[in-house]
Amino acid sequence: VIVTLTTDFGTTGSYVAQLKGALLSRAPEVTVVDVTHEIAPQDVLGGALVLEEAVPWFPPGTVHLAVVDPGVGSQRAPLVVLTGRELLVGPDNGLLSLAAAGSTGSVVDSERRKPPPRLYRIDETRLPAPPAGIRRPGGSATFHGRDLFAPAVAWLAGGGVPADIGSPVDTWVSLAVPSPTEQATPDGGRIAQGTVLAVDRFGNLITNLRPEPGSVDRVAEVEIAGQPVGPLRRTYSDVAAGQLLALVGSSGRLEIAVRDGSAADRLGLGKGAVVRLWLREARG
Amino acid sequence: VIVTLTTDFGTTGSYVAQLKGALLSRAPEVTVVDVTHEIAPQDVLGGALVLEEAVPWFPPGTVHLAVVDPGVGSQRAPLVVLTGRELLVGPDNGLLSLAAAGSTGSVVDSERRKPPPRLYRIDETRLPAPPAGIRRPGGSATFHGRDLFAPAVAWLAGGGVPADIGSPVDTWVSLAVPSPTEQATPDGGRIAQGTVLAVDRFGNLITNLRPEPGSVDRVAEVEIAGQPVGPLRRTYSDVAAGQLLALVGSSGRLEIAVRDGSAADRLGLGKGAVVRLWLREARG
Amino acid sequence: VIVTLTTDFGTTGSYVAQLKGALLSRAPEVTVVDVTHEIAPQDVLGGALVLEEAVPWFPPGTVHLAVVDPGVGSQRAPLVVLTGRELLVGPDNGLLSLAAAGSTGSVVDSERRKPPPRLYRIDETRLPAPPAGIRRPGGSATFHGRDLFAPAVAWLAGGGVPADIGSPVDTWVSLAVPSPTEQATPDGGRIAQGTVLAVDRFGNLITNLRPEPGSVDRVAEVEIAGQPVGPLRRTYSDVAAGQLLALVGSSGRLEIAVRDGSAADRLGLGKGAVVRLWLREARG
Repeated sequence: VIVTLTTDFGTTGSYVAQLKGALLSRAPEVTVVDVTHEIAPQDVLGGALVLEEAVPWFPPGTVHLAVVDPGVGSQRAPLVVLTGRELLVGPDNGLLSLAAAGSTGSVVDSERRKPPPRLYRIDETRLPAPPAGIRRPGGSATFHGRDLFAPAVAWLAGGGVPADIGSPVDTWVSLAVPSPTEQATPDGGRIAQGTVLAVDRFGNLITNLRPEPGSVDRVAEVEIAGQPVGPLRRTYSDVAAGQLLALVGSSGRLEIAVRDGSAADRLGLGKGAVVRLWLREARG
Repeated sequence: VIVTLTTDFGTTGSYVAQLKGALLSRAPEVTVVDVTHEIAPQDVLGGALVLEEAVPWFPPGTVHLAVVDPGVGSQRAPLVVLTGRELLVGPDNGLLSLAAAGSTGSVVDSERRKPPPRLYRIDETRLPAPPAGIRRPGGSATFHGRDLFAPAVAWLAGGGVPADIGSPVDTWVSLAVPSPTEQATPDGGRIAQGTVLAVDRFGNLITNLRPEPGSVDRVAEVEIAGQPVGPLRRTYSDVAAGQLLALVGSSGRLEIAVRDGSAADRLGLGKGAVVRLWLREARG
Repeated sequence: VIVTLTTDFGTTGSYVAQLKGALLSRAPEVTVVDVTHEIAPQDVLGGALVLEEAVPWFPPGTVHLAVVDPGVGSQRAPLVVLTGRELLVGPDNGLLSLAAAGSTGSVVDSERRKPPPRLYRIDETRLPAPPAGIRRPGGSATFHGRDLFAPAVAWLAGGGVPADIGSPVDTWVSLAVPSPTEQATPDGGRIAQGTVLAVDRFGNLITNLRPEPGSVDRVAEVEIAGQPVGPLRRTYSDVAAGQLLALVGSSGRLEIAVRDGSAADRLGLGKGAVVRLWLREARG
């Protein structure tokens, strides 16, 4: 069984190792994959977006643990989420909600959403005691990743059912991702308007617009912060080095990029910048 | 067998991969866990503190390799340390000494220390030759992590005994961590004084004070650099967002934190800042 | 089978995890080792140098995937390279060429080079369909690491032959690493001149000069940017703390270093700085 980890713990201290030790002590056979530990501290939305991108590429049955948890120690519930394909484990603060939905909202997104997930609230007192010789969680109320979530993940990765360590719940916190808006044009086309959600390492500006596969030809023009970017391209090499372009990125989202360069640096833009798509009338 | 790695090699070059290649070439079945490779270059105390925090959470029999080694190539001994629970491997410069002791010194720490460890000095000439097709260590005298420690760890992880690759030694370098001090108060209580040892990614100030479990109620007041912080709290959510607090962190140490913020930034304090604890008279 | 990864994807987003998910979905038994994901964006030479250093330390049969790919989506070929010892997979832009050659050019390098590698161009249409329940590559033309290379690596790691997923090619892009030059001196010795290729995390200046093992005694003097560094040393502890020295580093290359310090900071030098070696007449 694969267990992935998405946290804001950073990589300079021992937090990630403590969590992995607690996990591997109880479930030595799992394959641990780090998604990232560099979510900005306490940036729940940032963590939720990264998790949403990563989850679909792992096989069914994978257990995804995510911990970005400003409310640790409060009454927010620790959750297990069954999507019907994988298991998500983490705090009930919205962190798991985008991955569970399978898609951020988008006016141009036709991907079928997952059915509503089943939710369990983990009951710390029902977690099994660690094997002989394994350190028990201490008196700390601040490291649920190590003391509560890792034991729960070990239980689930070993084939344990959520009902044995928690109780079903009906409601949870869902993140409100800014949704694109849409309006008709007089000629039967549409204008879709969205925003930049994130900037990646290459300076690509990643938006909440998800053009349908095959809609490339219908996009007449893309614009960011009022500046024209041209039509939708298929790949970077459709333009010359140094030129601005719009394309559907690897996560299915519209991205504004510069070939062999950084769009964020070029444009001086980042999260929240407004992007517009002019779509021609649909054929057929 | 789990092998953990704690180094100052960084993650931008090939050093860590070279070490892992040398290890996995000789011991393909081990599970490698990175504690961190971002110890500040040649910061032996920083590495020792991170290792001390991580080690207790791994199962008995784990082999922990740590390399922060300003004296590589000199006469400092390469060591195997048997704590009775796990094996520690690394240079004899104090790096392993806190993890072996099982605890930093603390006036308010009742945790039972481990018995004195058994020590072996690795003899490079007694390491087994690599299997056919595996690159032999070259003429380099500067990369003991790859050329000396990785082969030793592979030997130990495969069930080899230290006596076959080294000779027992009696003395080693132990780090002197600044120890808290303590004085009685006229009313039968105590004042414990310690210092900030480290600042974590969240800006929490981590001290060398380790209040006993259950002593929360006895702490009347905490103070850092002369500023009052209030009583000892159980968790972040015991105070309002943005408020300063003191609590026992996940490593058992007293920490000064800001809920949903950074205490280091708020106070402008870091390593070496003085922290005082007023303890009421013990009951019973 | 070990699969190593060398990319410029960074560690803050989900790109690496998406690639690993695609790989582990198809080849759950592989052992994944990260070389680094922090090659500077689109720095093909930087990636090639790191890969060249790492590859020799892994066992025969290891599959090394490298993706630093400014031309993704263009006509540059996706390659499988068989060196006779390991498999290299990545774009045909020179990234794999130094590791395949087994050595950067050097006038003082006697290491036997590998025979010319065999090359295959991967044909995306011949990659096997993913197992049931595994997400298929989407319409993205920009993430070959996940959509094309990971499936190819899974095929090869499972024992599949390159000829089933690609066609032999004869020529490829080889990087031109700056080569050292050499001239004779009147007394029968030589002067070798090279340059700094990279600066590591410790501030060591790593050059393209690779003195033969055993030639230490022949080096009369080393000089960087016109400043004398002294004779070639065996290890850092051959000089006092804070002193400049030249030694053969762990990758077999001449390095300029400062004991317990940073040569880059001390000298204010970096990539491209000129280094000269005075070699005495060879004996025998």
